[in-house]
Amino acid sequence: MAKPSVRDKIVDAALERFHTLGFSGCSVQDIVDTAGVPKGSFYNYFKAKELLALEVLSIYGQDSNREILEDQSLPPIDRLRAHFEYMAAYYADFGYEKGCLIGNLAAEMTDNTPLLRQAIGQSLEKWTAAVTATLREGQKDGSIIASLDAEKVARFVINSWEGAVVRMKIARCRQPLDDFFAVAFPLLNRPTAE
Amino acid sequence: MAKPSVRDKIVDAALERFHTLGFSGCSVQDIVDTAGVPKGSFYNYFKAKELLALEVLSIYGQDSNREILEDQSLPPIDRLRAHFEYMAAYYADFGYEKGCLIGNLAAEMTDNTPLLRQAIGQSLEKWTAAVTATLREGQKDGSIIASLDAEKVARFVINSWEGAVVRMKIARCRQPLDDFFAVAFPLLNRPTAE
Repeated sequence: MAKPSVRDKIVDAALERFHTLGFSGCSVQDIVDTAGVPKGSFYNYFKAKELLALEVLSIYGQDSNREILEDQSLPPIDRLRAHFEYMAAYYADFGYEKGCLIGNLAAEMTDNTPLLRQAIGQSLEKWTAAVTATLREGQKDGSIIASLDAEKVARFVINSWEGAVVRMKIARCRQPLDDFFAVAFPLLNRPTAE
Repeated sequence: MAKPSVRDKIVDAALERFHTLGFSGCSVQDIVDTAGVPKGSFYNYFKAKELLALEVLSIYGQDSNREILEDQSLPPIDRLRAHFEYMAAYYADFGYEKGCLIGNLAAEMTDNTPLLRQAIGQSLEKWTAAVTATLREGQKDGSIIASLDAEKVARFVINSWEGAVVRMKIARCRQPLDDFFAVAFPLLNRPTAE
């Protein structure tokens, strides 16, 4: 196997450090120390910490197993559950301490990092589109309530998940995620008597 | 009116700076500069930035108008809505850019600030207890679905709100809050046909 490049080492270290310390809580020095590369090399690859964070965010999004939302072998509602359970298992590996990198970065955003704010917005839009499409498939096959506004509910479900994950970071246990599954999922397929 | 003490100036400045820059993104220097006091005076009052954050968190909680949850002149469901709308109006004053100080701090927590993590947990528990009590009142008067687990739903509603507020910070508009009102509230009082 090829040795990881200096650039790869920096990106891998940054993902771990941003996730553990946050964006502001993590200095370029922290990243190069973890990567085991000289500080000077950082600026050969990235002009600013914010630009590195853009790349880290993109990798984190790719790693979150959204493909499962398109898995035609499962009913749409089961895909949604599997999607969130996949993330829950990932958080469990870290003792429920780290939260979601996207939500953590979002909560930290200020006017000082406009590119990162924009990229987080786009990442959330992309995620919303994937969940919306799954909800619509479920509406077609009758397993998800047809009268729901799929896009609005997708945004709500993702935002609720992100809020549950922030609470999880504080409680350091799965309870907030269990609350999410117990309350949000019946919303999608429980018939109402309006 | 008495002039604010140096201590008061530091606390006021810290609330504003933590809310704008985050905990890690804001240095003691930022706080004393905003307060207009010498840096040396900071350590006369607070041994560490974390201890100041504990006080700021407590003030923020007191300012969030939770009393309205106990206002017996309003039906419980209307009190809940007024409680969240009060916060929405507060966020609107900042162009929907700053988010909730509790949620922002929660998303930033690491093992480096155990006291602050604990205080955030207690603040969320207290808030949950207040919302749970309101939901139970509504269950007694028949306006909120009796079969709901009030405490679980209170946690879910608060976490969903916090997630909506994080999304609001990125979107810089009210839409995530509107999604919350549109999807979470019918959960509480729409009869189901299970």
